[in-house]
Amino acid sequence: MTMQLYDLVGTGGLRFSPYCWRAKLALAHKGFAPETIPCKFTEIPNKVAFADHDRVPVLVDEGTAVPDSWRIALYLEDAYADRPSLFGGEAGRGMARFVNSWADSVLIPALAPVLLPDVFDCLDPADTSYFKETREKRFGTSIPSLAERRDEFERRLASALAPMKVTLKRQPFLSGETPLYPDYIVFGSLMWGRCTSDIDLLGGDETLHAWHDRMLDLFDGLARQAPRRAA
Amino acid sequence: MTMQLYDLVGTGGLRFSPYCWRAKLALAHKGFAPETIPCKFTEIPNKVAFADHDRVPVLVDEGTAVPDSWRIALYLEDAYADRPSLFGGEAGRGMARFVNSWADSVLIPALAPVLLPDVFDCLDPADTSYFKETREKRFGTSIPSLAERRDEFERRLASALAPMKVTLKRQPFLSGETPLYPDYIVFGSLMWGRCTSDIDLLGGDETLHAWHDRMLDLFDGLARQAPRRAA
Repeated sequence: MTMQLYDLVGTGGLRFSPYCWRAKLALAHKGFAPETIPCKFTEIPNKVAFADHDRVPVLVDEGTAVPDSWRIALYLEDAYADRPSLFGGEAGRGMARFVNSWADSVLIPALAPVLLPDVFDCLDPADTSYFKETREKRFGTSIPSLAERRDEFERRLASALAPMKVTLKRQPFLSGETPLYPDYIVFGSLMWGRCTSDIDLLGGDETLHAWHDRMLDLFDGLARQAPRRAA
Repeated sequence: MTMQLYDLVGTGGLRFSPYCWRAKLALAHKGFAPETIPCKFTEIPNKVAFADHDRVPVLVDEGTAVPDSWRIALYLEDAYADRPSLFGGEAGRGMARFVNSWADSVLIPALAPVLLPDVFDCLDPADTSYFKETREKRFGTSIPSLAERRDEFERRLASALAPMKVTLKRQPFLSGETPLYPDYIVFGSLMWGRCTSDIDLLGGDETLHAWHDRMLDLFDGLARQAPRRAA
């Protein structure tokens, strides 16, 4: 039976959720190509209620429902231990959690104000009111006023990327010589922007772009081929 | 032959260099208790010139000189592969570099303005002019004016610690179930403050303090017993 992944969908079928991308890349690393089940923001609570959860991604594998990108990575690692490892052992699993924590507490909050105006333009029309209300409440300001401060937010993002730059000057992937789950955490987060925006989130940095290109090439160009916002 | 570690020394024999602490903890993890060779800031270039380097730590092991805390960790891991691993495998080595990059580009710059006034008070008298000149140039302001802005710098530090908090809510060490080099990188950096200052760098956070206590207990209390600034 094919695995199923509940995935956020925007206008024109765009798939831009950073957390769903983490899961899709982890699945690809393990050699799985799940059937994805598109969910608009406003459909998610009903569609994934069976998993006792209210966000995507949710993975369903032979009747087992696994919510949350981090838990999905752990599930895949343990259930499919005979396939290529996502963590490279127990130490890697522990350290990958630090990368996941950094991505959730630093990278995503640095990306969000840069990307939100463009993400807003990529929503399914059914989701615009929900998104506007929740995000304007979260950021304490309107979406157009975020767009006006884009330069400031891009500078903050560039500063947040410093640990990646330092790392990638010394080794080809965040995980070392080969890509492992930490690379998918970070690159998956950046797919949020690739699918919705023309902004260069990497600020023209050559080291970061070289890594990003390597990531786009993985799995026969899985991420490179993902639909992007129409020009 | 006992290993030798060139180590920064302050007034009253204080040893507070964050990078030297990383090396001392890595050595302890491998079961080594090096002879430490105290160097005042202004003595370092002459004392470690033999290693073609101008900073501490420098490790000397049977005639081999190894400068730089990261390179020392790699050297110990490879030269003493039969002793407890610092990285837990290749993936851990790769991901540890991300933690090292984060510590160098985020944690140390967040600690520095909080601690510098107290570090200044802990210098050997021979070093005060050198330190004042170089640090005031680096920060573009006087050391007393850094002290005046301490509240602001402490808030910035608390924000920088976010990835540690998120990680340590889920697992006992930054590296997972047991301490590995990433824990020494971060804890070693914090020893900069423990030895020189009464400021609670962890802002009273229980999760962070519980981890910090576990780290102080390691190696029969190696770090806990280190001399601190006189009250």
